[in-house]
Amino acid sequence: MGDGKMKALFYDGPFKVSVKETDIPKIQHPDDAIIKVTTACICGSDLHMYEGRTAAEGGSGLVFGHENMGVITEVGPGVMLLKKGDRIVLPFNVADGRCRNCEEGKTAFCTGVNPGFAGGAYGYVAMGPYQGGQAQYLRVPFADFNGLKLPSGSEHEADFALLADIFPTGWHGLVLSGFKPGESVAVFGAGPVGMMAAYSGVIRGASKVFVVDQVKERLDQAKKIGCIPINFRDGDPVEAIIKQNDGMVDRAVDAVGYQAVDKEGSKEQPNVVLDQLIMVTRPTGGLGIPGLYVPSDPGAPDEKSGKGQILLSFGKLFEKGLSLGTGQCNVKAYNRYLRDLIISGRAKPSFVVSHECGLDEAPTAYDKFDKRIEGYTKVLLHPNGPLS
Amino acid sequence: MGDGKMKALFYDGPFKVSVKETDIPKIQHPDDAIIKVTTACICGSDLHMYEGRTAAEGGSGLVFGHENMGVITEVGPGVMLLKKGDRIVLPFNVADGRCRNCEEGKTAFCTGVNPGFAGGAYGYVAMGPYQGGQAQYLRVPFADFNGLKLPSGSEHEADFALLADIFPTGWHGLVLSGFKPGESVAVFGAGPVGMMAAYSGVIRGASKVFVVDQVKERLDQAKKIGCIPINFRDGDPVEAIIKQNDGMVDRAVDAVGYQAVDKEGSKEQPNVVLDQLIMVTRPTGGLGIPGLYVPSDPGAPDEKSGKGQILLSFGKLFEKGLSLGTGQCNVKAYNRYLRDLIISGRAKPSFVVSHECGLDEAPTAYDKFDKRIEGYTKVLLHPNGPLS
Amino acid sequence: MGDGKMKALFYDGPFKVSVKETDIPKIQHPDDAIIKVTTACICGSDLHMYEGRTAAEGGSGLVFGHENMGVITEVGPGVMLLKKGDRIVLPFNVADGRCRNCEEGKTAFCTGVNPGFAGGAYGYVAMGPYQGGQAQYLRVPFADFNGLKLPSGSEHEADFALLADIFPTGWHGLVLSGFKPGESVAVFGAGPVGMMAAYSGVIRGASKVFVVDQVKERLDQAKKIGCIPINFRDGDPVEAIIKQNDGMVDRAVDAVGYQAVDKEGSKEQPNVVLDQLIMVTRPTGGLGIPGLYVPSDPGAPDEKSGKGQILLSFGKLFEKGLSLGTGQCNVKAYNRYLRDLIISGRAKPSFVVSHECGLDEAPTAYDKFDKRIEGYTKVLLHPNGPLS
Amino acid sequence: MGDGKMKALFYDGPFKVSVKETDIPKIQHPDDAIIKVTTACICGSDLHMYEGRTAAEGGSGLVFGHENMGVITEVGPGVMLLKKGDRIVLPFNVADGRCRNCEEGKTAFCTGVNPGFAGGAYGYVAMGPYQGGQAQYLRVPFADFNGLKLPSGSEHEADFALLADIFPTGWHGLVLSGFKPGESVAVFGAGPVGMMAAYSGVIRGASKVFVVDQVKERLDQAKKIGCIPINFRDGDPVEAIIKQNDGMVDRAVDAVGYQAVDKEGSKEQPNVVLDQLIMVTRPTGGLGIPGLYVPSDPGAPDEKSGKGQILLSFGKLFEKGLSLGTGQCNVKAYNRYLRDLIISGRAKPSFVVSHECGLDEAPTAYDKFDKRIEGYTKVLLHPNGPLS
Repeated sequence: MGDGKMKALFYDGPFKVSVKETDIPKIQHPDDAIIKVTTACICGSDLHMYEGRTAAEGGSGLVFGHENMGVITEVGPGVMLLKKGDRIVLPFNVADGRCRNCEEGKTAFCTGVNPGFAGGAYGYVAMGPYQGGQAQYLRVPFADFNGLKLPSGSEHEADFALLADIFPTGWHGLVLSGFKPGESVAVFGAGPVGMMAAYSGVIRGASKVFVVDQVKERLDQAKKIGCIPINFRDGDPVEAIIKQNDGMVDRAVDAVGYQAVDKEGSKEQPNVVLDQLIMVTRPTGGLGIPGLYVPSDPGAPDEKSGKGQILLSFGKLFEKGLSLGTGQCNVKAYNRYLRDLIISGRAKPSFVVSHECGLDEAPTAYDKFDKRIEGYTKVLLHPNGPLS
Repeated sequence: MGDGKMKALFYDGPFKVSVKETDIPKIQHPDDAIIKVTTACICGSDLHMYEGRTAAEGGSGLVFGHENMGVITEVGPGVMLLKKGDRIVLPFNVADGRCRNCEEGKTAFCTGVNPGFAGGAYGYVAMGPYQGGQAQYLRVPFADFNGLKLPSGSEHEADFALLADIFPTGWHGLVLSGFKPGESVAVFGAGPVGMMAAYSGVIRGASKVFVVDQVKERLDQAKKIGCIPINFRDGDPVEAIIKQNDGMVDRAVDAVGYQAVDKEGSKEQPNVVLDQLIMVTRPTGGLGIPGLYVPSDPGAPDEKSGKGQILLSFGKLFEKGLSLGTGQCNVKAYNRYLRDLIISGRAKPSFVVSHECGLDEAPTAYDKFDKRIEGYTKVLLHPNGPLS
Repeated sequence: MGDGKMKALFYDGPFKVSVKETDIPKIQHPDDAIIKVTTACICGSDLHMYEGRTAAEGGSGLVFGHENMGVITEVGPGVMLLKKGDRIVLPFNVADGRCRNCEEGKTAFCTGVNPGFAGGAYGYVAMGPYQGGQAQYLRVPFADFNGLKLPSGSEHEADFALLADIFPTGWHGLVLSGFKPGESVAVFGAGPVGMMAAYSGVIRGASKVFVVDQVKERLDQAKKIGCIPINFRDGDPVEAIIKQNDGMVDRAVDAVGYQAVDKEGSKEQPNVVLDQLIMVTRPTGGLGIPGLYVPSDPGAPDEKSGKGQILLSFGKLFEKGLSLGTGQCNVKAYNRYLRDLIISGRAKPSFVVSHECGLDEAPTAYDKFDKRIEGYTKVLLHPNGPLS
Repeated sequence: MGDGKMKALFYDGPFKVSVKETDIPKIQHPDDAIIKVTTACICGSDLHMYEGRTAAEGGSGLVFGHENMGVITEVGPGVMLLKKGDRIVLPFNVADGRCRNCEEGKTAFCTGVNPGFAGGAYGYVAMGPYQGGQAQYLRVPFADFNGLKLPSGSEHEADFALLADIFPTGWHGLVLSGFKPGESVAVFGAGPVGMMAAYSGVIRGASKVFVVDQVKERLDQAKKIGCIPINFRDGDPVEAIIKQNDGMVDRAVDAVGYQAVDKEGSKEQPNVVLDQLIMVTRPTGGLGIPGLYVPSDPGAPDEKSGKGQILLSFGKLFEKGLSLGTGQCNVKAYNRYLRDLIISGRAKPSFVVSHECGLDEAPTAYDKFDKRIEGYTKVLLHPNGPLS
């Protein structure tokens, strides 16, 4: 790529992405760095854009990819802690490290990177002017702050790649619920984030972790890591959990979000999981909501949901004295610790990875992942070819 | 009362209460005590029953009164810390001090005093078999645990009486919001609980406390204690606060609850205050909900509200990453500290008390308080006559 | 025992204990219960008395045993939650559940059970008038508050017995250090409490747990549960840990206490472990001190130590901004959660138990345990015979 | 100063400082800014250097001053949030905002600004290569991160100047003690930091604040802000406090540090205050130690103290289950909130300022402050002349 060109995955419109040649990004601010991407994951939230269910416009030059890691090829003159050749993984959040929210550890709500909004991300509509990492190279703003240094080489690549988003996001769900070791937890949704929330519970000393989903393969995987699977197609999951737990659980996590479906598993019903959380959690307990809810959803099943308004059993929530935490994950709050758990062998989150491929196969991977066929659940792209 | 008889205020049916003679209560459990009531307050939540908007039935022998203090006349053989003659104030919650929730400080959710439910109270429908203290004598279960000892005499009587409920409940609202000193707070509702929440903010070092209501007298009082009054009849309170605060506040407290009214101040609109909290609070902030929401409300304006279901701007709440705490106040968690603030002169919550009278005047007081006439906002009853 | 008599282990003076007949204890307070002891453990702190290194006097009728569990044979009229036949385990702390410290969860510092002192225990000098459980029956004060209910039967007996003291105490050490999951920890001392602190780190998601001791068998056991053993006889443990951890650890736990010995492992040097904690912990880290330090020690190596005065590298501690927590364990804060971890199979602490025997063998067990011969590290007594 | 020259206060050796001309500092890193200093305070810890009790060498070109504020005259190309003309106050800590400690809010322990050490500061020996602000201009590293923006103009100048160190440091002392509103506190030392700790207690809702010192003027000032003065020359301060508080206090703060003196107020006795904290605090309470202790003190009264080793009543500390927090203040954790309290009129810390003068008078001010004559307790320098 001596010509300053690279390949990247562009969004062309609903259900259309393609690999095209474009310029290798350049340093724009003294604290920037450029990385050669070794791994970029496809995330379930990329599918929101892919399906045309956001404001993202095809042909606008948007490159997808907010779960990125790689090796530094260049640093700006302000960069002090990192240097060329360092292997780093990046939080999906772009954060400046100098605003109030960043200084208080709330890096998912940085006010300095996306004017008029609290929070930025790579390769995502409305999250600021940052291209994604489903490309050969990526510009990393505020590199010292955003880059988490990894041991050099290619060991644990798939595990480390999950530090960009889903492992910390699942962990965050548990934190938002107020979880303490020894407590019982119910996780709704066994997609990658839900699985990571459940896995976090196992790592952190939950006495019991229930995992609710309708997909047999996911539930089998949950069981394999020590959780108790609950298939909501088999009956009311709240009743099933209360029965098996001999009472309500201490904490519950919503890893489903606004596209929750009814008990037949077909029609969208945005409040179904939130209400189940309220019902399954014991008085004084807590709810963690890492699953995405949005203030505006053009594809919503009804007008209220379209405006992000959801009907909650708030009277019951109050009667039980529940607390509730929400929001995007502040990845930097956890990624260092999760990295150390991976290095010491105590965590191996890559069991959720279903596929790995090169950038050229990415369009096919999007198609299959979106259709949920051939077991596609979590795809890792290696834009510069397979790792040695 | 050598004949074992006393006077007490009975509920006779919607808008009807009367003072009748009844038996002085007796020790029923070794840890019980009996107090001669010096002060029992009338609470806004007594009006829910008074207005017939609960399951309370007239003629069932229910004595009102969950905000009680007095002097011990008798203790059971298990009582160790208190003795005859001690002056005590009682949390409105009845708690056994031996269940899991009590041992973890969640005394509002005691599972031992009200079978099948988490939480008990004096003189309240569905909160267990405990008579109220709007009477000359009161049985106090688990007296050592529930009674907070006060300096003997009658000093600070009105201040101490507010330790039973509204001062701790207002304080709890602030705690639920995650408040830290130096932050800005918006309190919605300037009734007694809201005023106490605002006052708690002042005591605990809030940089600014906004208080929202529509009643001029309440707003004037808020201003007098150092808060910034916002009259929601003058325009959107969210806009007004954001403008005066030069941005959203850090924390917001809902001291209104499910009977919130629309901007004209007339029609009930249960979600109006909750949504204002969501809008007025800055990303990463917190909401405290001490205001009552119920899972079942026969008098609700619509069917959903009747089942305690409320339409919330949950997408916005999530986007901002807000947290939210709810529930009845665990009075014991705070009353000792608030007592000490009263004794040392740093807190004087009795400024909210509007009227004091004897038990015989109680029916009239209920009538006027319910009609919100003659400035009735907080009434203290002295069932055994005025204090010397 | 129809004659109201039972066997119990009495302290007769330094290095002398014997089994004698005595009266079965009776209900003294309405909230008391009596249990038939199924298991009572011998604790390292029993040896302090056994060796004559406390104010305990032989012949005073003291029955040892503060780690007790059994089945209820009788309850007083105030007991509400427990009933005859229930299997319970008791915190070593006796607590009244009604004083300020108890209500705030600080049950190790109950002010109601041992006049003039904060804290009580079974069978221990200066810890109140409570006989120990190395006997066939035991009186349990404030039974509802102190007894933790267990599944009936005899399953997990050895695991549950450790809920009385060492499992929660080890866990508490980690809590005192301010530990968070993903952090690295160094535990000094691999006796039963240290081993439980290390095990707690494993359960709760420590990235690395170093365990320092001089006894090969203990270090082997530490390795077996996933920790990194450090033998302080092989060189400076601080240097060894920093080297293997590639830097100082986040947290350190002192599970040795005032009888720490110098690097030759022979002479007592009370400050050696505390100073090692200060040196091995990184700036901003935390120290947890569950290991016993006493304000008065007749057998101390020097006058200052005899008064509980210890020379600390306080300048270094300050420079690093370390925090430090100390004190006896509030067992009730953890035992419910640890019980649930045992029941769900996630914790199995009984791997530290070295011997089990009847009451008659207790004197021999004391002798061997005190001499640290034949692998005696943790002994469980079954005063009513082996469990079926 | 069109010639690029300015005046600054240089350290010339023990008890000697002088104002000399030197170069105006230049941008060295893209994230630097330069400020024109409006106020720089003299701090008690400047006197450690002034008295020759540190490793600072006269003639080495060291400019004093770590409590600085001013107006930005120039920013580097990496600075994004601040701009020329902004009025800012700087934490005494220099921090990079990108190391692990900074990202976790522990800016007093930044590992990026002072190689081989955790923590940096302006104008202080061994705290990195940063000149002090007792000069007309100052270079501010990582300006976006370190500079706290203030309202433009000159209002509240003296209050805001105290945000650089003593107000946050006093506040930090309270935080380190684990203080909660409603609790009682004893602050040892009524110098500027102690007074700010006491004032923080008042602002944050302490029920009682005791202040211990031997200087009448300080004690009078403590009384004026609502505290209870205790003169340790009048008798044992521990006994006096316990008597007046009717028991031990909940929290105690050491605002004296290693140069504590004995009860005659003459001879240094480094452990006297720490031991008083241990004795005056109730079981389960907490100690906050913002007062400086150093690992090496050439002027110490004895060899152990010279190595920062202090004899503590650790047995008593353990018996009481006390916790203890230490270390330099992470100013950024608090300064934003304290600024807002100043702006809203709820805090006015400048009551501790005794003198204000120009840079030329600084040598005289050092001399008098060091001799504690003419009421010198807190001096504010205005290096560019009096504020309009």
